[in-house]
Amino acid sequence: MIKIHGWATHGPKQKLKPFTYEAGPLGPEEVEVAVEYCGICYSDIAMINDEWGWSRYPFIPGHEVVGRIVALGDHTKGLRIGQRVGIGWNAGSCMHCHECMTGHNNLCLEVAPTIVGRHGGFANRVRAHWAWTVPLPDILDISSAGPLLCGGVTVFSPLVTFGIKSTDHVGVLGVGGLGHMALKFARAWGCEVTAFTSHQSKADEARGFGAHHVVLSHNSEALETISSSLDLLIMTANVPQDWQALLKTLKPRGRLHILGVVTEPIPIIAIDLILGHKCVSGSPVGSPTMIATMIEFAARASIAPQVEHFPMSQVNQALEHLRSGKARYRVVLDADFA
Amino acid sequence: MIKIHGWATHGPKQKLKPFTYEAGPLGPEEVEVAVEYCGICYSDIAMINDEWGWSRYPFIPGHEVVGRIVALGDHTKGLRIGQRVGIGWNAGSCMHCHECMTGHNNLCLEVAPTIVGRHGGFANRVRAHWAWTVPLPDILDISSAGPLLCGGVTVFSPLVTFGIKSTDHVGVLGVGGLGHMALKFARAWGCEVTAFTSHQSKADEARGFGAHHVVLSHNSEALETISSSLDLLIMTANVPQDWQALLKTLKPRGRLHILGVVTEPIPIIAIDLILGHKCVSGSPVGSPTMIATMIEFAARASIAPQVEHFPMSQVNQALEHLRSGKARYRVVLDADFA
Repeated sequence: MIKIHGWATHGPKQKLKPFTYEAGPLGPEEVEVAVEYCGICYSDIAMINDEWGWSRYPFIPGHEVVGRIVALGDHTKGLRIGQRVGIGWNAGSCMHCHECMTGHNNLCLEVAPTIVGRHGGFANRVRAHWAWTVPLPDILDISSAGPLLCGGVTVFSPLVTFGIKSTDHVGVLGVGGLGHMALKFARAWGCEVTAFTSHQSKADEARGFGAHHVVLSHNSEALETISSSLDLLIMTANVPQDWQALLKTLKPRGRLHILGVVTEPIPIIAIDLILGHKCVSGSPVGSPTMIATMIEFAARASIAPQVEHFPMSQVNQALEHLRSGKARYRVVLDADFA
Repeated sequence: MIKIHGWATHGPKQKLKPFTYEAGPLGPEEVEVAVEYCGICYSDIAMINDEWGWSRYPFIPGHEVVGRIVALGDHTKGLRIGQRVGIGWNAGSCMHCHECMTGHNNLCLEVAPTIVGRHGGFANRVRAHWAWTVPLPDILDISSAGPLLCGGVTVFSPLVTFGIKSTDHVGVLGVGGLGHMALKFARAWGCEVTAFTSHQSKADEARGFGAHHVVLSHNSEALETISSSLDLLIMTANVPQDWQALLKTLKPRGRLHILGVVTEPIPIIAIDLILGHKCVSGSPVGSPTMIATMIEFAARASIAPQVEHFPMSQVNQALEHLRSGKARYRVVLDADFA
């Protein structure tokens, strides 16, 4: 029995406290990773607050893990002790359903998120299924790689899945944790990139991340000037929008793709979809192969999230910084267990 | 100046009356067709009633025309006098925009519907741009072909556009004018076909059109039994639905595709799209090449709309029959001008 030390929440909105649990024997298909870095994602905060009703306390958040393999189950495949790897939102899936067997493991109905019913990466060790433990190349900047494993693959996946081409015009709504990575990926993809933000103050930063154009998302006249111009609009914000005006910014056959968990129903007018052959879609994180593909591209294109670092022992200050909306743009905890 | 004789409405919800107009010289790219048959579509009724605010009176409805070419403008291409052709919802487009030049003429911003600002096919003659005048093969049953040109291509187009395969599972909601054709096409496509209807009485007919299964669309328990089973659900009804329950019938990466003009906003829950990588889309009729492709397939697969015939001089009785909901399933007017 090994003991794992981490930072756990014991109830909704509570501060994290040092917490130790007995991990039990390593499963035959499990990998144990010594955590070096762990990003903080808004879904960690949602889980701490039990916003989705999935939280069981106590639990250790953290699902943007970078570290080295310290133990391998007897039936793991393709990995070795000491290898540097990443673990993202999911830590396992059934491996035998249609989705898993066709490489869409992220859509498996039994997919096991790293911090739902399990302990995550704000800890010295974390475990995951071998398939969901993704090798990281040496060329990647390891200290900022954590957020790529969840937010990064989430914004990257639509570019691959929907066959986005360098000649396409891509919009990104929301210049935040997800959005700034989406801008970087879309720019590196060769696309013409438009950032939509409700904060004029973020315009220059959006351009720095790769936007050719910036429009104010709450300004209907501004949206009017770019009507019928986008092939894809990636929505990273989780607040209500002027959906009808946003749909008008799409070209015929354009796509409005939702990544932010907007809780209010999105009112779609049928004729807005019908006349322009448009679509509204959504997607979750990515499969293991999508993560690996994203990592390879990010390394080659030198795409790194813009991060701020906190020692893991200051996790509560780091969470407060993120909650305050001051994080620019993701926060990474550096493991500092004794 | 030639005079064209037809049946026109002179105001919203009025009965159609005999009406003659001077057609002016034939445009260089225009084709004049002697009408043999013209289907009646619900959008004729919507236009008669000015439901969309596009109607200018008097006008002659009718946009599911089958007939023979009697005159060709000087710059028409690929057609000959006497040829049997069809004209559907659209009678022209700009021919030089990106959409027209890439074969998506139906998405041209200047597309000219046959009965918007123009006179349609409840007449002895109708005119259209040569590109939108689609040759009909001899093998096709001409007397029932009219509804293929509007409703038929509308339900056929998604099968081509979204790469539907014979191994896919396709649902069709609504067993009516559009829906019965969608069932026939999906069955001929080789798919496993499920009809969704709110009328138990239509179950046997739906099976006759090709449905392997029939479910009651307003029965949430019935919908539950087919959860995660469909690749594509084609919505042909124009009334509100239990959208959340319908989205659950889709497999991961499934598509809910809207063809019926539902006027109430459709409330979409973001997480329903995100978790299953799903999408909600819509599309209008088809391009000229899509119509030609559909006609070729319909002829080969012996797909014909189920129609009832009225002489064109009984157009008001025919319209009333359609309005009463008794039509099984489309109505075709047989031209009987003296």
